[in-house]
Amino acid sequence: MINITFPDGKVREYPAGSTALEIARSISEGLAQKVLSAKVNGEVWDATRPIHTNATLNLLTWDDKDGKNTLWHSSAHLMAEALEALFPGIKFGTGPATENGFYYDVDTGSRQISADDLVKIEEKMLELARQKNAYVRKDISRADALTFFQGKGDEYKIELIEKRGENEALTLYQQGNFVDLCRGPHIPDTGYIKAVKLLNVAGAYWQGDETRQQLQRLYGIAFPKQKDLQEYLVMLEEAKKRDHRKLGQELELFMFSERVGSGLPIWLPKGNALRDRLMNFLRTEQEKRGYKLVTTPHIGRKELYVTSGHYEKYGKDSFQPIHTPREGEEFLLKPMNCPHHCEIYAHRPHSYRDLPLRIAEFGTVYRYEQTGELHGLSRVRGFTQDDAHIFCAPEQVKAEFLNVLDLTRTVLSKMGFKEFTAQVSLRDPNNPAKYLGTDENWRSAENAIIEAAQEAGLTTTMELGEAAFYGPKLDFMVKDAIGRQWQLGTIQVDYNLPERFELEYIGADNKAHRPVMIHRAPFGSMERFISILIENTAGKFPLWLAPEQYALLPISDRFIDYCRQLQDELAQHDILGIIDERNETIGKKIRETELKRIPFMLIVGEKEVENNAVSVRRQGEGDKGSLSIAEFVAHFKAEVEKEA
Amino acid sequence: MINITFPDGKVREYPAGSTALEIARSISEGLAQKVLSAKVNGEVWDATRPIHTNATLNLLTWDDKDGKNTLWHSSAHLMAEALEALFPGIKFGTGPATENGFYYDVDTGSRQISADDLVKIEEKMLELARQKNAYVRKDISRADALTFFQGKGDEYKIELIEKRGENEALTLYQQGNFVDLCRGPHIPDTGYIKAVKLLNVAGAYWQGDETRQQLQRLYGIAFPKQKDLQEYLVMLEEAKKRDHRKLGQELELFMFSERVGSGLPIWLPKGNALRDRLMNFLRTEQEKRGYKLVTTPHIGRKELYVTSGHYEKYGKDSFQPIHTPREGEEFLLKPMNCPHHCEIYAHRPHSYRDLPLRIAEFGTVYRYEQTGELHGLSRVRGFTQDDAHIFCAPEQVKAEFLNVLDLTRTVLSKMGFKEFTAQVSLRDPNNPAKYLGTDENWRSAENAIIEAAQEAGLTTTMELGEAAFYGPKLDFMVKDAIGRQWQLGTIQVDYNLPERFELEYIGADNKAHRPVMIHRAPFGSMERFISILIENTAGKFPLWLAPEQYALLPISDRFIDYCRQLQDELAQHDILGIIDERNETIGKKIRETELKRIPFMLIVGEKEVENNAVSVRRQGEGDKGSLSIAEFVAHFKAEVEKEA
Repeated sequence: MINITFPDGKVREYPAGSTALEIARSISEGLAQKVLSAKVNGEVWDATRPIHTNATLNLLTWDDKDGKNTLWHSSAHLMAEALEALFPGIKFGTGPATENGFYYDVDTGSRQISADDLVKIEEKMLELARQKNAYVRKDISRADALTFFQGKGDEYKIELIEKRGENEALTLYQQGNFVDLCRGPHIPDTGYIKAVKLLNVAGAYWQGDETRQQLQRLYGIAFPKQKDLQEYLVMLEEAKKRDHRKLGQELELFMFSERVGSGLPIWLPKGNALRDRLMNFLRTEQEKRGYKLVTTPHIGRKELYVTSGHYEKYGKDSFQPIHTPREGEEFLLKPMNCPHHCEIYAHRPHSYRDLPLRIAEFGTVYRYEQTGELHGLSRVRGFTQDDAHIFCAPEQVKAEFLNVLDLTRTVLSKMGFKEFTAQVSLRDPNNPAKYLGTDENWRSAENAIIEAAQEAGLTTTMELGEAAFYGPKLDFMVKDAIGRQWQLGTIQVDYNLPERFELEYIGADNKAHRPVMIHRAPFGSMERFISILIENTAGKFPLWLAPEQYALLPISDRFIDYCRQLQDELAQHDILGIIDERNETIGKKIRETELKRIPFMLIVGEKEVENNAVSVRRQGEGDKGSLSIAEFVAHFKAEVEKEA
Repeated sequence: MINITFPDGKVREYPAGSTALEIARSISEGLAQKVLSAKVNGEVWDATRPIHTNATLNLLTWDDKDGKNTLWHSSAHLMAEALEALFPGIKFGTGPATENGFYYDVDTGSRQISADDLVKIEEKMLELARQKNAYVRKDISRADALTFFQGKGDEYKIELIEKRGENEALTLYQQGNFVDLCRGPHIPDTGYIKAVKLLNVAGAYWQGDETRQQLQRLYGIAFPKQKDLQEYLVMLEEAKKRDHRKLGQELELFMFSERVGSGLPIWLPKGNALRDRLMNFLRTEQEKRGYKLVTTPHIGRKELYVTSGHYEKYGKDSFQPIHTPREGEEFLLKPMNCPHHCEIYAHRPHSYRDLPLRIAEFGTVYRYEQTGELHGLSRVRGFTQDDAHIFCAPEQVKAEFLNVLDLTRTVLSKMGFKEFTAQVSLRDPNNPAKYLGTDENWRSAENAIIEAAQEAGLTTTMELGEAAFYGPKLDFMVKDAIGRQWQLGTIQVDYNLPERFELEYIGADNKAHRPVMIHRAPFGSMERFISILIENTAGKFPLWLAPEQYALLPISDRFIDYCRQLQDELAQHDILGIIDERNETIGKKIRETELKRIPFMLIVGEKEVENNAVSVRRQGEGDKGSLSIAEFVAHFKAEVEKEA
């Protein structure tokens, strides 16, 4: 018999060799039907793979990220099977799950797959899915694997196998007639795939190398229920309308320039105003919570990054070192702000009374991403982190986590995100040697995070083995207006950098101690956060954030002076907007202001000037009648108040 | 006879071959005694050099920068003469005037000059000065010059001559027994030098090259009146106390780190707060004047700088290009923000109705300075410009200059600088081919600048031939609290970048026109400006700017809670400060707060809590009695008001 430990800590006995599926069935048949794979001792396995030793077990369903991954990875195999049936002689590259579905890179020779083929492939996939073919795992030697794929003539697979160690044990997976070189895991059988949509076909170089063959990459997504697909397609349609790249251009928020470089966003006046307001808001909230703002350079000497370890990490794939006229002198564009903040900590001695020291910076960092990976503001090469590093004593970790959770929740709610969950990444309990820092510190930090998340009332999932080698972390997840989940606000404990920079403080015991460092960024980066904010609001920003809160629309030139007076008067209440001085009809002005998502239109004609008033329209809502300036200010402030 | 045109435009006739000194004497003997050199057709000449053609003439005295330069350059020769008398066999490198005095690089072999020798050298210089030896200019061929210095065994001079063109005509200057290879110009005779102070002796590599001989560099300063030297020495003493590097460390405003890199300032919380307030203040003033703020990346593709011409300008002496994993792709750290702003202008079509377009950015730029040139915040490798670029129609240049002059004067007065002058740099009228842009545009831009400076009531000096090839400019000069003159706030017209980026707007005539670009930065850079602000205020910043405006000093721990309440209450009035929670005597707390230059000390004990009051001390002024919170807020605001 073996002992199986469940996520809630309960332990039950099962016969050795039981599978996760069998264990699930022992709990309920309903549960068993939902199990896609299982985390066994922190590693994702086939639900049908026998467990022979005591283990922690986490059953994975469609509600788990790893469960989704398993279904999508299996869908890639299913697509491959369909393709092999439809395009005999097809050769396969690699076919992984992605954040949102799966793809397979394939080579069909001269007969290229076109968008028109996709429906036919989907139909074949569903036909094969209905056969409920089991995904069967087989161990195989490198030599046998080579023989098999040589027989099939699958040159890409052969190349992959040749790269593996001489005596490495490999695995194959087979479902129906299709056999693939694969580490797994997979769902029990193809019947779990109930709905499929192939989204796109694009070119992709073999191994991402421009000098190798160009393959075709087929993107798809699959679901365990037909209804899920329908909802997804509606969401996709809605997401297209809200695409921040499209809205960013229409609303003139940001731009890119070929000469400046791909992935380097340029903030235009309106986007910059929005970004400034966000930063000011966060600055104030941080000051309230005892953060100290600093500004550090965007470069640092190579030695700084050798000390921090980033030089090793951001190697050949990154922006390369900057040489100077001085022989041997090298600088790096900073990929992270933490080394600079460590230098600030280190520049004078500290006592335990100085801690926690919370050093914050809106720091712009640069990281080289492949051109193909760049995407609007969400994946860029230069971005501004709302970064901070908290240097504290080990016993202060929990209080600091609570402080950061409170800050994160406050700022994200103010942005209109109300649904939060958290994911806590912990050590792999079976592999303690892998981690830096004392066992005691780890245990106390992990407990501190879990307790803090509980006290903050967050729905939390725990991921064993997902912690970085230098410390556990918590990721904040939010759901947007169309149901998409986004990861924002990481809080990361770090035992590594204080060690590398030899940071110290003198404790109450008059001895030197090493502080703990906590990295945190509620928004993550201004760029990525604003991309999510644009898509979440569809460009209709909360009133207090709108770069232009109103447009004054004079009915004729004669009223422009009055409009300018109003503009000054409103500015005194910190209400900012523009005057549409163009010589256009009022109807046209209203229509265009609507499209620009400017919250208030203030129409000014003879009557309004006489009564010292404005005629008010609310974007998307229409006419609100004539209001005195004082009334409008009150109305405006009440609406901002309601948003809070 | 020749026609001599004076700066006021008047023209008078003089015999051909007249010297500037003779012309001055024809006006008044008093003037002649003050003339140190003269600008003839825009070129600085000996006052004793005959003028043979019609010319514009500007007599230079101690009040002119070029006049000072001449006296200092002649003082370097005088020092060399003294050195040759005291250290026979001494060899000479180069000996120019500097911003504040002069130096000479010398090689005395094994008998090094020490600080103790300086007084002896000064005395010898004054002895030689009293001989009123004339500075005599002699033309000489390259061959004869070589023979002369070979005879003297002056290897450094020989190297300098060998670098000159084969047939180049050289000049020597002789005063007393000393002969130097020199382009001049010089003062009429050594008698003009009435006071001398040698300041320092330091090592300096020949030709700034670390692989060559190390020479000794002797720094000095000289004056036409004894009184000037005394004032200078008092100022120097005062300047030492105000040194921003010393105060910056004491007040914890900024730091440097060896690992981050020399010349890369790191703004600590207090300095950062000061910098933020300055930027916010300027941001508001700019918004009032129609500027639009943007944010652009700190790097750009090499192609951007090839287009702008900066790639050529910032060549081997600069931060070198950043390579990426992509073959042939190169980025540069941005040395200027203008190319990015040109790309913003270019990203959509413009009509004359959009102009002027004022694009502003607090843009951090990076320029490689030699390690030896770095100096605190005033000379750094990374700095944030309060930059803006105005794109306008040629006929808008004057109005834009007035707008910028008004802005510059408003912000600098608010900082406590009240004495302004301006220097306008114009074309060399004798060399029109050297300049880019039509003759008509230049004439109208130059007139626009001169008229704007006049209308703004600025005392202005004109410098012919000092304009850049791409446009005329105006420099704002301020005087600080100890009489030093600083150049701040350049306003530069630019015809070049609009050409290179092919910028256009559609005019009222429906045709494409090229806009004019104006670069401007009222502070110059945040770093340099703050260094001047620290030295001007000796760290006692205007109340509204002080990073910590008050310190609450509780007499005992029991009053800390009350202090926290007060802190929140004052924050609501935007009055920010700290609580000194240390367990120290109130006397010690007051003394230390005084030293930190925190404007207000608010002492809190039993009586204050009872009366809901604070006991107020003003830094440097002492006790102000007990005030209620409302009274203190009113007192504070009144003081800020007075500063405006």
